[in-house]
Parts: sequence; C-alpha cells; structure tokens
Amino acid sequence: MARTLIKNGTFVTVADEFPIVRGSMTIENDKITYIGEHAPDDAEKFDAIIDGSGKLYMPGLVNTHCHAAMSLLRGYGDDMALQVWLETKMWPNEAKFTGEDVKWGTLLSILEMIKGGTTSFVDMYDHMDEVAKAVEQSGMRGCLTRGVIGLCPPDVQDHKLREAVQFAKDWHGKADGRITAMMSPHAPYTCPPDYIEKIVQAAHDLNLPLHTHMSETLREVLENEKQYGLRPVDHLAKLGLFSRPSLVAHAVHLNDAEIETLREHDVRVSHNPGSNLKLASGVARVPDLLKAGVLVSLGTDSSASNNNLDMFEEMRLAALIHKGVSGDPVAVPAKEALKLGTINGAKSIWLDEVGTLAAGMKADFIALDIDQAHFLPKSDYISHVIYSASAKDVTDVFVDGKQIVRGGECLTLDEEKIKFEAQRRFELLTN
Amino acid sequence: MARTLIKNGTFVTVADEFPIVRGSMTIENDKITYIGEHAPDDAEKFDAIIDGSGKLYMPGLVNTHCHAAMSLLRGYGDDMALQVWLETKMWPNEAKFTGEDVKWGTLLSILEMIKGGTTSFVDMYDHMDEVAKAVEQSGMRGCLTRGVIGLCPPDVQDHKLREAVQFAKDWHGKADGRITAMMSPHAPYTCPPDYIEKIVQAAHDLNLPLHTHMSETLREVLENEKQYGLRPVDHLAKLGLFSRPSLVAHAVHLNDAEIETLREHDVRVSHNPGSNLKLASGVARVPDLLKAGVLVSLGTDSSASNNNLDMFEEMRLAALIHKGVSGDPVAVPAKEALKLGTINGAKSIWLDEVGTLAAGMKADFIALDIDQAHFLPKSDYISHVIYSASAKDVTDVFVDGKQIVRGGECLTLDEEKIKFEAQRRFELLTN
Repeated sequence: MARTLIKNGTFVTVADEFPIVRGSMTIENDKITYIGEHAPDDAEKFDAIIDGSGKLYMPGLVNTHCHAAMSLLRGYGDDMALQVWLETKMWPNEAKFTGEDVKWGTLLSILEMIKGGTTSFVDMYDHMDEVAKAVEQSGMRGCLTRGVIGLCPPDVQDHKLREAVQFAKDWHGKADGRITAMMSPHAPYTCPPDYIEKIVQAAHDLNLPLHTHMSETLREVLENEKQYGLRPVDHLAKLGLFSRPSLVAHAVHLNDAEIETLREHDVRVSHNPGSNLKLASGVARVPDLLKAGVLVSLGTDSSASNNNLDMFEEMRLAALIHKGVSGDPVAVPAKEALKLGTINGAKSIWLDEVGTLAAGMKADFIALDIDQAHFLPKSDYISHVIYSASAKDVTDVFVDGKQIVRGGECLTLDEEKIKFEAQRRFELLTN
Repeated sequence: MARTLIKNGTFVTVADEFPIVRGSMTIENDKITYIGEHAPDDAEKFDAIIDGSGKLYMPGLVNTHCHAAMSLLRGYGDDMALQVWLETKMWPNEAKFTGEDVKWGTLLSILEMIKGGTTSFVDMYDHMDEVAKAVEQSGMRGCLTRGVIGLCPPDVQDHKLREAVQFAKDWHGKADGRITAMMSPHAPYTCPPDYIEKIVQAAHDLNLPLHTHMSETLREVLENEKQYGLRPVDHLAKLGLFSRPSLVAHAVHLNDAEIETLREHDVRVSHNPGSNLKLASGVARVPDLLKAGVLVSLGTDSSASNNNLDMFEEMRLAALIHKGVSGDPVAVPAKEALKLGTINGAKSIWLDEVGTLAAGMKADFIALDIDQAHFLPKSDYISHVIYSASAKDVTDVFVDGKQIVRGGECLTLDEEKIKFEAQRRFELLTN
C-alpha cells in the first residue's frame, strides 16, 4: 500500500463545510484518507512525506467539453464566424486527420491540460482508440466518446455508429477505471432525427450517458425550428436523448421553458465561455441555469476556438462575464466559479468520488505555487484561485493518488517528442 | 556604448508593414538600431550576444490605468457593486494607507507587472513620491499622477492640488526620462466643477496632460446628468478638461455624440475590460470607439478589482468579450488587440518612441518562452500571443535597452523582501 503525507499545506477543499484547511492531507493508494489540522502520529509509516509550505492544494480541474486533437489547428483560422470557420477551416482539415494526427494532437492537449491542473476531461472526436491510449499513458481521467456526424449515406452512418459502440465496449472502465465512455450524436444540426434515435438506443443498450453539442448559435436554433418545428431542447427531448443521463455542450441560446426542460431531465450543461466569446456565439444564461438548479460545469472546447486549455481562465471568464453582461456584481461569485471547474465538472461526468478534497474521495488534486506576487496578500485564496491564478501556477498534479506532474515537469509523457511530432503533423497537414 | 545583439529570434514587431520578423535585432544603449533577417557582420563588436532561439520577442506591454498600491487589498472584498465596494471596503482602508503602505503595495504590483511583460504603466494614487521612487528603482516606465478627490473643504482641496503640482514638478522627466507626470481630478463625481477647473488650469501651467475616471457606471452617468444637467463627457468638455491632452479611464457608458466628442478632442480611452466585468460596470463600446477613430488602449485598473496585472489577459479579454457581446466574430481581431496593449498604450501616454520594435525606437521589449505546448503549432504567433499566452510566459524584459528581468528573475528589485513587506502591511492594515 502506497501512503503519502502532505504536511504544512493550505487546502482549498471545495467541500461546503470547511472550504479552506491549513494542515495535513494523507493519501493511501488512490484515496484521500484524512484532511485536517493535525499531522498524523505515525508519520514514519508514510512512503512519501511532502512539505506543502508555499503551496495551495485543491481538487484537480474537470474540463467537460474538448476535442483534444484539434490543438493541431490552434491559431489556424481565427476571428471568423462559427459556421464559416467550421466549413472552410476546421472540417476540411480535420477530414485529413489520420490516427497519427489524432494521437499527437491529443497528446499535445493532454500535456497542456495536465501541466495546467486539469485531471479529468471529456473528449469527443474520431480515431478514439488513439485518444484512449493517450489518456491511459498520461495518467489522467478521460470521459471519451466517438462523436458521430450523420450527414452521410446510411451505410456510413451505420459504420460510424458501430465504431462508437465498439469504442465504448473496448474502453469503458479501462485504465484502472480512469476511462469512461459516452455515446455522442455530434449535434442536432449534423445528425438526422432517426440517426439520433439509433444512437440513443445504443446508449440504452450499453447503459451509457449521452453527450452532444446543443444551441451553440442562434442560427442553429432558428434553423432547427425551421426544419423540425422545434427548438433544439424539445427536438432532442422528443428523440429520447434526455431519457439517458446527458451532458450538453454550450447551451447558449435557451428560453425559460428550455431551461425548465433541462432541469426536469437533470441534463448537465458544459458552459464554454472562452469558445462562445471567441466565436461570437453569445453569452450563455449561466446565472439563470444555476438559479433553476441545472448542473453547470466548464469546458474549454478545442484549442482551435479558445485557444488554450487553461481551466483557470474558464473559471475566471465564468466569474467575470456574467457579472459584466448581467450588471449583477454578485453573479457567479468566486466560490461558485470554483465549483463549476471542480465538483460540478466531476458530477457532470458521473464521477462521484472526484471534485473535492475529503476523506474517502479519489486523490485527484493539484498544487499551486502561491509564493508569488499575484497570490499576495494572503487575504482570500478562493478569490485568488478564481481571479488571479493561471494554469502556469500549477506545480504538482496527482490522479488516483499517483503523481503525474512534479515541479512543473510531466512524469508520464515525453514532452519534447510530443512537441516535435505535433509540429510535424501540422506541417504535413497544411503544407 | 552598450551594444546587444539578439540572433535567431522571432519578433512580433507590431509595425504595420512587417508584423513578424525571423532574424536579428540590435540594440545600442537605449535604442533599437536594427531589426531584420540578417545578422550583423560585426558580431564580435557587441557587448552581449543573446541566442533568441525558442523565444518570441515583442514590444513591452503598456498598462494605461492602474492604482498599483491597491494590490495590498487584493482579494479583500470581491463580488460587490462598485459604489458599495468603494465605500465599504476600499476607501476606508485606503484612508489608512501610509507612505510605507503605498511603497510596498506599489512594489508588489511593479514586481508582478515587470515579470509579466509590462514595461510602462499609468499610476494614479496618493503618496506618489513613493510610487516614483519604486518606478525609478524598478527600471520600468511610469506615467504618474497624484489623483485628487475634491469631496473635502477648500483648504484640503488646495493642499491636495499643491501636492499634485509639486509631485509633477519634482518628477516629470526624471529617472532618465522614464517617469512622466499628469494631473488628475479623480472623477467628475468626486470633484466639484470649480475644483476640476483649477486642476485643468494647473495642467495648462505645467504643460501636462490630464487623466481621470469617466463614465465607469451607468449610475455615475445618470447622477452626473441629474446634478449638472450634462452627461460626463459634455460636463468635462465644458470644464475645459479636453483642452489639454487627455486620457480617460473606463468610458463604459457612452452615447454616439459622446464618442464623437472624444474623437474631436483626441481624448484617449483606457479600456479596462477585466475590472469593468468584475465590478459589473458593463461592456465598453470598444468596436464603436475604434471605428470612430478614438485611440483606445488597455488598463488593468487595480488588482483589488481585477485581480491580477496580467496585460496578456486584458488583451485577450478585449479580443473575446466584444465578439461575444456584439455577435460579430471579427470584432477586435487579434492584431487589433495586440495594438491596444502595445503601440496604442504608448501613444496614449505620449511615448512616441515606445510600442513597436523598429530601428530608432526605444529598446522596450520582452521575450516569451514559446517552447511550450500552448504555443504549438507554429501557425500564427499574433494569435498565440492574444488567445493563448499569459504573463507567466515572459522570461526576459528590457526597458531603455537595460535588462530588468532575466529568465523570469527580476534583476532590479528584491522580490523576497517585497513579498514579505506587502504581507506585513496587509496584516497591519486589516488586523
């Protein structure tokens, strides 16, 4: 049994009762066994003792919407409208993606994510075996899904769905349980209704949740109404999507009735503020969603539309933009933003033992170097984490009790090789 | 004569004709003497030769609105409305600030700023001799002003104005020209009209520009109308403020006529997106200001309302929020956001030789470590600087040709002492 003791630390627990603890945390194998003011009496029995002075410990961040491989197209087509950007820049190049491209693009993103404190992420893409292998190697958690676009002949649709089912069968629960799977129609505007119904049925058969893009742009909502006579929420509800546990990404353009429908069906919303702003999709009604009791978490979307995978920035954007746009200075306060990036993210992907620091929880946690000017004075660490910190402040990362980043260095991946290969794949794709 | 050669570098020049150069830059004393593809023939004549491989060089960032000393109150009162926050948290504590508090708070901010790539800043505060001494010691540039609040008896008003005048006389042009001065009525809602007129007259007498807060909140605009029968722009124009070169901070709530008035008088606007969002003040009409030809730059405001001094984040916020709020995906494109943080900032504080990398310009520049996942692939460095970079990517900083940060270490200030003293001052203030 591997036992680790962290002493003299400051812990932002994200547990409701005691948000900040100064003292010790102990870990046995994959679990937190104690967190509190006291140091254990049997310190000599620990395999590793870490001095946590000058560090702030907090739960690892959970990114609930990403297409990791698309980091290969970071900076390749900015400042464009969503549909134009997808149709002229992203889709034509993504169509050329091979398994090798997905492998190295995903590893590049995982490297950025884990060094920046993200310990779990959702990925929806193609060539998902490569994604799963990258997650397995990295030591982080992945809730993975082969996203399918149904704008193709029935035999191609069927082929994609079989791939998605096979991927889920092959990988759900693998990598010591760090990998879970979902089923994913890409979006209501890219999948005909009968195809969505087939995917929902497959999710029922496999007992898996569903993930999709929904109501990202106003145009998409209006076209859905025109084509199907329903806005996307009712359309998806009618097709049975919400009969399974569901996570929808974006949900920018919602009316009150749709928010109520999402709440009724316990649909989880991945809010992607950076991507929504950059693509001018709009500002999601996050304060209203939270007020209604909808479970909201945060996603970066891909780094082609963000353009980084810094979850601290997404928490800060969530805390800032809803104040500025609503005119309500207490909208999404720091504590709420912190939950969006941690416990809410974990709940949104059905990880019941992740997202807070407490005895019995999985040891998924990160350390920030707080011996820096922007963490002073020592006034309010939740405020500092949300309004001042960045991915670059992260020094150490643990998942399932295993250290995967130490002093800013990734222990599980070959950083130099990943950077080299990612650049090479980009050149091969675009030259 | 000190001569420095940087070779094998990638330079984001922010000059219109050739935004990105791969090659060399030479510096003699305080000036850039060459930037281009070729390495000089007389490399042996340089005092220092720097290998710029893996680095991105760009102009130092210019922060055009700050109250540096207020970093002592970072995280001390978040998620509150502007007036309540000012009246219950900031002003009562700031009233207790001594010269020592201002000294250490300012040094804490300067440390954060220069390590994060900001080479020039505007500061409006009290105990300004301490601020000037800190700027002088740090090696950065400061455009400094003793901001005066006129809600006090006439003799106190006069005393403050005399202080402001004396400060300007003592410090304008000092520290090898790195310090310049302005005159500052704090805001139309904190200074009676006759007091503003006196300050304007003093600025005329001293031949100095003016700086003020203006139209930050809707409440302020409406109360100005109620009290004086004019919105703030016309009110300040009537009091002669714009008869001098002027820089106004915030300018969130403007109508079309006010934008035209600002343009007519060549009034410079310091846009503070992070602070405006956090305090729920609203979203400034930056695309309209830019379209009208108003010179817009970026400010962090104080780290009590931001809560960091990362100018990369302000550039990114400027690029993101105006797209998301306007629905126009090409609003404030990356190149424009980069100008807001560099050349526009320099022009806004009348620094004609700062803000771009070109022969003849002052050698105020910074280097970013681009051998990192979030700078890959090498697709578009302007995009990466705006949408992906942060203050923590800065490794080296030069001002006036002198290096003040090397490999992330500040060469001019005692970081440990500043952090210690800043924390101590906070504890003395709030305990």
